Amino acid sequence: MDSNNRAPVYYSEYLQLDKILEAQAPESEKEGIVANDEMLFIITHQTYELWFKQILHELNIVRNIFKQRNVPDNSPDIFNANSRLKRIIKILELLVAQISILETMTPLDFLDFRDLLRPASGFQSIQFKIMEALLGLEFHNRYGQEYYISQLHPKDIESVKNAESEISLIVLINSWLERMPFANDQKYWGGHGKDFWHHYRAEYAGGLMPTEQANLEAFDKLFMNPESYPEGRRLSQLAMKNALFIMLYRDFPLLHLPFELLDRLLEIDEQLSLWRQRHIHMVQRAIGKRVGTGGSSGAAYLKAAAESHMIFKEIAELNSFLIPRSKLPKLPELLQKDLSFDR
Amino acid sequence: MDSNNRAPVYYSEYLQLDKILEAQAPESEKEGIVANDEMLFIITHQTYELWFKQILHELNIVRNIFKQRNVPDNSPDIFNANSRLKRIIKILELLVAQISILETMTPLDFLDFRDLLRPASGFQSIQFKIMEALLGLEFHNRYGQEYYISQLHPKDIESVKNAESEISLIVLINSWLERMPFANDQKYWGGHGKDFWHHYRAEYAGGLMPTEQANLEAFDKLFMNPESYPEGRRLSQLAMKNALFIMLYRDFPLLHLPFELLDRLLEIDEQLSLWRQRHIHMVQRAIGKRVGTGGSSGAAYLKAAAESHMIFKEIAELNSFLIPRSKLPKLPELLQKDLSFDR
Amino acid sequence: MDSNNRAPVYYSEYLQLDKILEAQAPESEKEGIVANDEMLFIITHQTYELWFKQILHELNIVRNIFKQRNVPDNSPDIFNANSRLKRIIKILELLVAQISILETMTPLDFLDFRDLLRPASGFQSIQFKIMEALLGLEFHNRYGQEYYISQLHPKDIESVKNAESEISLIVLINSWLERMPFANDQKYWGGHGKDFWHHYRAEYAGGLMPTEQANLEAFDKLFMNPESYPEGRRLSQLAMKNALFIMLYRDFPLLHLPFELLDRLLEIDEQLSLWRQRHIHMVQRAIGKRVGTGGSSGAAYLKAAAESHMIFKEIAELNSFLIPRSKLPKLPELLQKDLSFDR
Amino acid sequence: MDSNNRAPVYYSEYLQLDKILEAQAPESEKEGIVANDEMLFIITHQTYELWFKQILHELNIVRNIFKQRNVPDNSPDIFNANSRLKRIIKILELLVAQISILETMTPLDFLDFRDLLRPASGFQSIQFKIMEALLGLEFHNRYGQEYYISQLHPKDIESVKNAESEISLIVLINSWLERMPFANDQKYWGGHGKDFWHHYRAEYAGGLMPTEQANLEAFDKLFMNPESYPEGRRLSQLAMKNALFIMLYRDFPLLHLPFELLDRLLEIDEQLSLWRQRHIHMVQRAIGKRVGTGGSSGAAYLKAAAESHMIFKEIAELNSFLIPRSKLPKLPELLQKDLSFDR
Repeated sequence: MDSNNRAPVYYSEYLQLDKILEAQAPESEKEGIVANDEMLFIITHQTYELWFKQILHELNIVRNIFKQRNVPDNSPDIFNANSRLKRIIKILELLVAQISILETMTPLDFLDFRDLLRPASGFQSIQFKIMEALLGLEFHNRYGQEYYISQLHPKDIESVKNAESEISLIVLINSWLERMPFANDQKYWGGHGKDFWHHYRAEYAGGLMPTEQANLEAFDKLFMNPESYPEGRRLSQLAMKNALFIMLYRDFPLLHLPFELLDRLLEIDEQLSLWRQRHIHMVQRAIGKRVGTGGSSGAAYLKAAAESHMIFKEIAELNSFLIPRSKLPKLPELLQKDLSFDR
Repeated sequence: MDSNNRAPVYYSEYLQLDKILEAQAPESEKEGIVANDEMLFIITHQTYELWFKQILHELNIVRNIFKQRNVPDNSPDIFNANSRLKRIIKILELLVAQISILETMTPLDFLDFRDLLRPASGFQSIQFKIMEALLGLEFHNRYGQEYYISQLHPKDIESVKNAESEISLIVLINSWLERMPFANDQKYWGGHGKDFWHHYRAEYAGGLMPTEQANLEAFDKLFMNPESYPEGRRLSQLAMKNALFIMLYRDFPLLHLPFELLDRLLEIDEQLSLWRQRHIHMVQRAIGKRVGTGGSSGAAYLKAAAESHMIFKEIAELNSFLIPRSKLPKLPELLQKDLSFDR
Repeated sequence: MDSNNRAPVYYSEYLQLDKILEAQAPESEKEGIVANDEMLFIITHQTYELWFKQILHELNIVRNIFKQRNVPDNSPDIFNANSRLKRIIKILELLVAQISILETMTPLDFLDFRDLLRPASGFQSIQFKIMEALLGLEFHNRYGQEYYISQLHPKDIESVKNAESEISLIVLINSWLERMPFANDQKYWGGHGKDFWHHYRAEYAGGLMPTEQANLEAFDKLFMNPESYPEGRRLSQLAMKNALFIMLYRDFPLLHLPFELLDRLLEIDEQLSLWRQRHIHMVQRAIGKRVGTGGSSGAAYLKAAAESHMIFKEIAELNSFLIPRSKLPKLPELLQKDLSFDR
Repeated sequence: MDSNNRAPVYYSEYLQLDKILEAQAPESEKEGIVANDEMLFIITHQTYELWFKQILHELNIVRNIFKQRNVPDNSPDIFNANSRLKRIIKILELLVAQISILETMTPLDFLDFRDLLRPASGFQSIQFKIMEALLGLEFHNRYGQEYYISQLHPKDIESVKNAESEISLIVLINSWLERMPFANDQKYWGGHGKDFWHHYRAEYAGGLMPTEQANLEAFDKLFMNPESYPEGRRLSQLAMKNALFIMLYRDFPLLHLPFELLDRLLEIDEQLSLWRQRHIHMVQRAIGKRVGTGGSSGAAYLKAAAESHMIFKEIAELNSFLIPRSKLPKLPELLQKDLSFDR
C-alpha cells in the first residue's frame, strides 16, 4: 500500500455513523407515547449485537487456526488463538457488566413500552445462537428447541442451522487434542506406553480419601477402559487423556500455551453462564415472576441454559483427576526433550 | 474533643498492622512444603472476613433505624439507611469481583496444600451466617442445616443461634411497611378505602393478556382475600399492599426513598446470589466435580443456597403486579398533600 | 394504544440489525491487507458512539427538567433527573472499562492498519464534543481549539457550535441554585439573614488549624464579599452559597435529592476524567511517545483536557468549606418546617 | 506429609480471625463521639495492607526467579513469573475498584472524625513504599522525599531504605535482557550482527511520515550510538535492543512469554498510575482543595507520583520504534531454529 496516496479517512464516515446513529426507532414514538427509557432498551441491545459480531469474528479466526490439518508447534498459531480467546473473554465480561446499565430501568418505566414490543425478545438474537453453535452447542442439547424455533423467522432458523452444520470449536479442539502424541506414542513409551496411565492411576488412587473412592471408578471409565467410555461425549477418550496430560505437565514449555488454551475455554463457559445468571435476575426484576409472558419462559429458559449449555464441561471435569505435582510420574528423556526448546 | 491535645496518631498503629500483617501462618510452611499460593488463599479469606465485619456494622446501623417504634419522615433516617444499604451493595460487588483473584490459583497449585486444610472450609464463616440471619434467613430455611452444624464449633453454633434470635431486617421492614397508612387509612379513603384495591384490581385485570390470567388469581390471593393469603410468608398482606403502593406511587416525594429502599433490598439479594454463583464456578474449577470432598458438597450447597436463601423474594414478586403509570388510580387530595412537601 | 392490534415486532427488525451489522468496512480489506484487528477497532468505536447517543438522550431530558422556570418540589423532577444522571454515570463507567478490550490489541497489530486510517481520530467524535458542550464546556476553555477545529468537517464544526450556543447543564444548575430561598430569604432570616453566614464563618474559622488560615481568605472571597467574588466563574456567589447550604443541611428531607444531584455532577466529572486518563495510557501503549503523529498530540490533548475540562469543579471546591455536623448553626423553625414533609 | 494424621484445621483459627477481627479501634469511640463511618475507614485501609502484603509475596517470588544467574528457557520460570505478575495486576485492579467503596463516605461524614486521625495518612504505608522500591523506584526519584521522611518513624524509614538497597525488579530485568543473545550474538550474525540494526533502521526510517523525523534521531541515540545513549537510564542500550527484539519477534515460540512479561510490567505501571489518579479524585472529593492540610499535599504528591513514579517507562518507549510485521527483517536460519521447539 502507499498510504500517502489514499484519500483521507474521516472518523464519522469510517465508522458509518450515519447508519449507526440513525438506527433507533422507538415503537413508543410511533404510537405518540412518551417512554423515555425505550432508547436505552434499543441502544443496549444494539451494542450487544455489535459485540456478538466481534466475538464471531474472533471465533472464526480461532476456528480457522484449528481447521489446519496440523497446527505447527513453531508457528504463533496457539499464541494467536489464546490472544483471541482472551479477547472474547474480555468482551463477555463487559457484556455481563453492561447488564447493570439496563437495570437502571425500573419495572414501572419498562411498562411504559413493554407491550409494544411483543413478541420481540432477546431469544431472537441469531448471532448469539450462532455463537453457541460455533462453540459447539448441538441442536439436540438446546433447551426448549421447539419454543425457540417457533419464535424465529425461517431465514433466521436457516442461519442457525447453517452454523450448526459447520465444524464447531469443540470438535476442532477434540481433533487437535487427539493428534498430540505425548501421552501415548510408542516413540516415547515403547512397549510401556500403557505404563504411564497405570502408574498415574496408582498415584491417583493413593491420594483419595476413603469417602472419595467413587472417583476411582469414574477415573477408570474415562481413562482406563475403552469399552466403558460413556457414549455421547464431545471429547473422545484419547482427547481426554491428552487434555489431562497437558494439565499435569503444563510446566514444560511446549505445553504452556495448550494449558492456557484449555483454561480459556473454561472461562468462556463461565462467562456465558454468568451472563445468563445476570440476565435471569434482570428479567425477574423487570417483570417479577409474572406467569405466561415471554419473560417467564425467558427466565426458565436462561436457567436451564445456564446449566445445560456448558460447552466445555468435559474439560472442567478433568480437574477432578489431578494429583499434586510432587507425585507426578517422571517423563522419559526423549519426551522431555521434545516438550522443550532446542537449546 | 480538643483534637490539638491528642497524641499524634500513626498509620500503622492506628490500623494495628502488627496484628493484621502477622496473622498469616501457612500450614504448608509448618510442614516444610513449598506451596507458594497458600498465602493468597489466607489473605483472600481474611479480606473477606474484614468486609463481612463491615457489612455487619452497617447492617446493625440499619436495623437500629428500623427498630424505632416510629421512623420519622422528617428525620434523615431512611436517607441514612439507604446510604448504608448502598454501601453494603458496593462491598458485595467487590466481594464478587474479588473471586477472580482467587481464580488465578490453578487447581494444580491448590493441590500443593489443599489436603493440609481439612476440614476447614468457607462453610465455617460465622460472620457470613450471622449476616444471613440478620438479614432474615431463618434456621429452617437454611439449606443442609445438619451438615452445616456438624462442621462448626459449639461456640460458633451459639453465635449463629444468637443472631437468629435477634429481630432481623426483614421483620423490621415488615413492621415498618405495616405502619404506613397511605393505602388503607380511613382518613384518606373514608368508607371507600377498599375502593382503591378494587379499582386497582380492575386496571390490573384489564392489562393482562389471555395467557396471563393465572396472575389475577395470584393477585387476589395476595392482595384481596385475607383468608387466602398464603401461610409462612415473611411479609404480611398489609405489608405487601403497602410495598406495592410504594412502588406504584414512588413519584410522590415522600415515597422516593422508601422505593429506593425496597430496590436496594432486592439488590442485596441479587449480589448475594451472584456471589454464590461465582463461588460455585470457582469451586468447580478448583476441584472439578470430585465426589465426596468438602468441595462437592460445597457446590451443591451453594447452588441450593443461591435459590433458597433469597431473603427478599416476596418484594421481588411485587413486580408481577404493576400496571403502567398512565393507568394508575388518582389519589385523594388529602393523601397527595401528605405525600408531599409542605410548600 | 391497543397493543393487540399492532403488527408483531421482530427483534432484528426492531433493532435495525441490517444497518448496524453491515456498517463495518475495514480499510485493510479495501487494500487487500490482512489486519484481523481492524474489526475490533471499528466495533469498539461504534459502541462508544451508540453510548454517546444514549448519554445525549439522557442529558437532554435532564436539561429539559431544569429549563422549567421553576422545578416544583412536589414533582418527581429532581428524582427523575438524579436517576438519569446515575444512568449516565453507569454508562461512563462502562466506557472506562471498555478500554481494556481495545487494549487487547497490541501495538504491532495496530501497525498493520494504523497508517490506513489517517487522519481519522477519536478527536473527530462530534457527539463527545456536543456532550461536553451541553454539560457546560465553553469553546474558550477547550484545550487546543484551533488544532481541533482543523480536524473537523465544516458541518461538524457547526454541530458543535450549535451545541455550544444552547443552554448548558451548568448554566441551568446555576439558575436552579440561585432560585433556592433557604439560605438567604428574608422570610426565614428576617433582618438577620446575614447572620447565618457570619455565624457559619465563625464556626468555619474556629475549626481551621494554624497552617490552614489561607482557607479563610478563600472563604471570604467566595461567600462574604460580593465585590471580591472572582470573575469568570460558572456559578454565581448566590448559587455557591446555596450549594454549600445544600451540602450542609442535606439531612433535611427537601435537600436529600438536591444533595445527591450535586454529588452526581461531581461523579460525571470524575468518570470523564478517568476516561481521559485511561485513554492516555491506551494511546501511549499503542504508539509509545512517538513524536509528530496524531497520537502524540492525542496524549497531550487528553492530558490537558483531563485537567481543564472539569465542568463542575466549582462545586467540588465546596468540600473545602464544610464544618462538622455538630457545629452546624441551627435553622429557624419556619425554615425547618419548609424543608420537611407536611406531616 | 501424612495429612491424615494432622490435627483438624478450623477456619477461624486458620485465618487467625481473633486477631484480624479485633484489630479495629476507632479513635472516635475513644472520644465518645459517634462517627459511624470510621469503621469503614479502618477496614478499607486494613484490606489494602493485606493486599499489599500479598503483592510483596508475589513480587519476591518473581525477583527470586530473576536472581538466578541464568533463567533456563526449559524451566517453567518465565511462565511462573508471568502468572504471578498477572496476579499482581488483578490485585491492583481490585485496589483501584475498592476506592469506590471508600467514596461512599461523604465529606461531611469524614469530618466527624477526620481531625482525630492527625497526622496519620496513607503516606505512611510502608508496604506500599517497599513495593515501589522493589519494583525499582529509587530514592532520588521519589517525589517529595523530605516531606515524606518527616512523616515516618525511624524504624519505618529503615525498612524502606532496606528495600531500596535490595536488587529491584527492573535491575533484574535489565540483566536478564542483557543476557539474551539473539539480536547480537556473533553465532547468529557472523560479522554482520551490526547488519540487523542497520537493516532495521532503514525500514524504520522508511516508514516515518515527514512530520515524524525527530523519531529517527531518538532511534539513533537509543539503538545505534553507544556514545550518545542517554545517562541515568534504568535499562542499558543492550537491554533496550533486546527488549525491542522481543517485541518484534514475539511470534517465535521462545519469545512468546518474554513478550508477555514486558507487557505485564507495563500493566503494573498503568494500574499503579490509575490507583494514584483515583486516589487524587477521592482525596479531593473528601476535602476539596483545602490548603495546608495533609490532604492537599496528598493530592499534589499523588499527582507528581502518578507521573514520575512510572518504573518501566523505558519499556513503554519502545512502542515508538516498531515497524509493521510485513517489513520485519528475516532472521538467520540458525536463529530461527534456536527460537523454536525442538521438533
